[in-house]
Amino acid sequence: MNTLVLDSDDVDEYARLADVIDAVEGAFGAFERGDTQMPVKSYIDLPQYNGDFRSMPAYLDTGEWDAAGLKWVNVHPDNPEDHDLPTVLGTMIYSDPETAFPLAIMDGTTLTMKRTGAAAAVATDYLAVENASSLGLVGAGVQSYMQLEAISEVRPIEEVVVSDPDEERVEQFVETYEDQFDVRGGSIADAGSCDVLSTVTPVEDPIVDLEDVGEHTHINAIGADAEGKHELADAVLEAARIVIDDHEQCTHSGEINVPYGEGVLTDADIYGEIGELVVGAKDGRSDETGITVFDSTGLAIQDVAAAHVVYKQASADGAGYGLDLVGVDG
Amino acid sequence: MNTLVLDSDDVDEYARLADVIDAVEGAFGAFERGDTQMPVKSYIDLPQYNGDFRSMPAYLDTGEWDAAGLKWVNVHPDNPEDHDLPTVLGTMIYSDPETAFPLAIMDGTTLTMKRTGAAAAVATDYLAVENASSLGLVGAGVQSYMQLEAISEVRPIEEVVVSDPDEERVEQFVETYEDQFDVRGGSIADAGSCDVLSTVTPVEDPIVDLEDVGEHTHINAIGADAEGKHELADAVLEAARIVIDDHEQCTHSGEINVPYGEGVLTDADIYGEIGELVVGAKDGRSDETGITVFDSTGLAIQDVAAAHVVYKQASADGAGYGLDLVGVDG
Repeated sequence: MNTLVLDSDDVDEYARLADVIDAVEGAFGAFERGDTQMPVKSYIDLPQYNGDFRSMPAYLDTGEWDAAGLKWVNVHPDNPEDHDLPTVLGTMIYSDPETAFPLAIMDGTTLTMKRTGAAAAVATDYLAVENASSLGLVGAGVQSYMQLEAISEVRPIEEVVVSDPDEERVEQFVETYEDQFDVRGGSIADAGSCDVLSTVTPVEDPIVDLEDVGEHTHINAIGADAEGKHELADAVLEAARIVIDDHEQCTHSGEINVPYGEGVLTDADIYGEIGELVVGAKDGRSDETGITVFDSTGLAIQDVAAAHVVYKQASADGAGYGLDLVGVDG
Repeated sequence: MNTLVLDSDDVDEYARLADVIDAVEGAFGAFERGDTQMPVKSYIDLPQYNGDFRSMPAYLDTGEWDAAGLKWVNVHPDNPEDHDLPTVLGTMIYSDPETAFPLAIMDGTTLTMKRTGAAAAVATDYLAVENASSLGLVGAGVQSYMQLEAISEVRPIEEVVVSDPDEERVEQFVETYEDQFDVRGGSIADAGSCDVLSTVTPVEDPIVDLEDVGEHTHINAIGADAEGKHELADAVLEAARIVIDDHEQCTHSGEINVPYGEGVLTDADIYGEIGELVVGAKDGRSDETGITVFDSTGLAIQDVAAAHVVYKQASADGAGYGLDLVGVDG
């Protein structure tokens, strides 16, 4: 009985966004119905290497399928300069929940990129105006590419404005997509006036002000992933309908963590969790809705859901390298 | 940059017991000096499958080397009957602590077997009589084989007595080792009168009484791995010098968990942790010492230490299957 080893190219090929978006939507719904298990992340802190490891196990049952797995991931900010390696490296073990057999080991870095894009797409589908055709991006790093690809799965995006102080990155982004979209560089206000805005920067001082944002813009706030980080001015959050992925993660390390910690925002200012919109317990956008914000911190169930998609399609296609890893064939 | 995939045969070949024993001894010492990180195990309980998953991340620094990794393991008791799979299946991710690069993915089932045998060998080295030449085994399952192989690395074992109600298992064990040792089946008292005794059964009612045990016998109590399990009668534990691997794990799910929970044993009855013997903070056996018991529950640092040995030797030998799993070669 074989375990499938899938590298980053395999994950890139088989984590097809339409399928990952469906699976992540299913995961958010399962979360809301209480059909998930997600122990708190365990941390190993290694100050001597300016890094840490995080263990993210999870199980989910969408009703149509269930899945289990674990992502082992890290943050080592000195990696790019000192070791020519990415800051974050992920490895995913995807297991059959019924027997615990390790069905696949796969790259968790590309998987994380995809499931993060997919989460924004799910939120955009519930919260952006129906005919949204313009997308603004603040930050032109790798996740901005994923945001465009995922969001254009759920809305007829034609016009794209990308804002980044690094002109080379803007140029590279524009070149990548100029055949598919009407894409240009622009100011934060140019990006913020689009129907949908995704912010993907690691800043600690907000860079998007209320006057930068359109009256009905839906914002995916992706960048904040640690205490002290936020991209949106308090005035944006105060004006917006705020949807979060998970209360504990968002109030500790998500976009809202700073104003929440300062008491500028309280629980009364949080409209709901994305899972509540998925299961229909709360409404998405209506004609009266103004600015909306999705605070995305990334849940372990998203990784497992994305791994489910990758494994299913890759094994059907005979992709990857299979071996009797755990020695069950005697 | 390649990640090495090592299957159960590779782990069996490269987890050479002499090296694993050294590494596990180093891990126990690091634990005692506070040079380890071992977050509490995270559980995912799946009653619908009568199973659970456990995530065991760890880091250790022995002074000579450091290592990090995570074992993802489970207990699914219905596996053998319903799925022709083992109850426990483990997968190990072994990472470079400095960069978090996943150096290897390896079978964690064989690894667990080896590190468990190695722990008993370390304890035996500190606690058995110096010239111990006889080993008793209660239980003739797979771990009994490992106990013999590991313990014979640290003591000149010649005579082996194996006790198990299943005669076929006893026969198979005897046949396996009759060329190397003076090995025979026998009663629990026959096994218990040896210089060293290892108990490797999953019983909930003790099967080893005080009259079964020699006056200077060292006992490795390996079987208990959950609340309610114990193999040794209270009288054995009350008469013995008790050494544990970890206080929290042993009092919750180790050999001493039942009498400790009932107040029959208290902290005053625990001589110390194995790490204290390793670092010299407490003495091992002296001429006056009678019965000793090592309560082994198995620590995540043992897995990481064993994985360190496997990776080092396997990569030196060019073994395993290497691939650019996380896509760092562009």
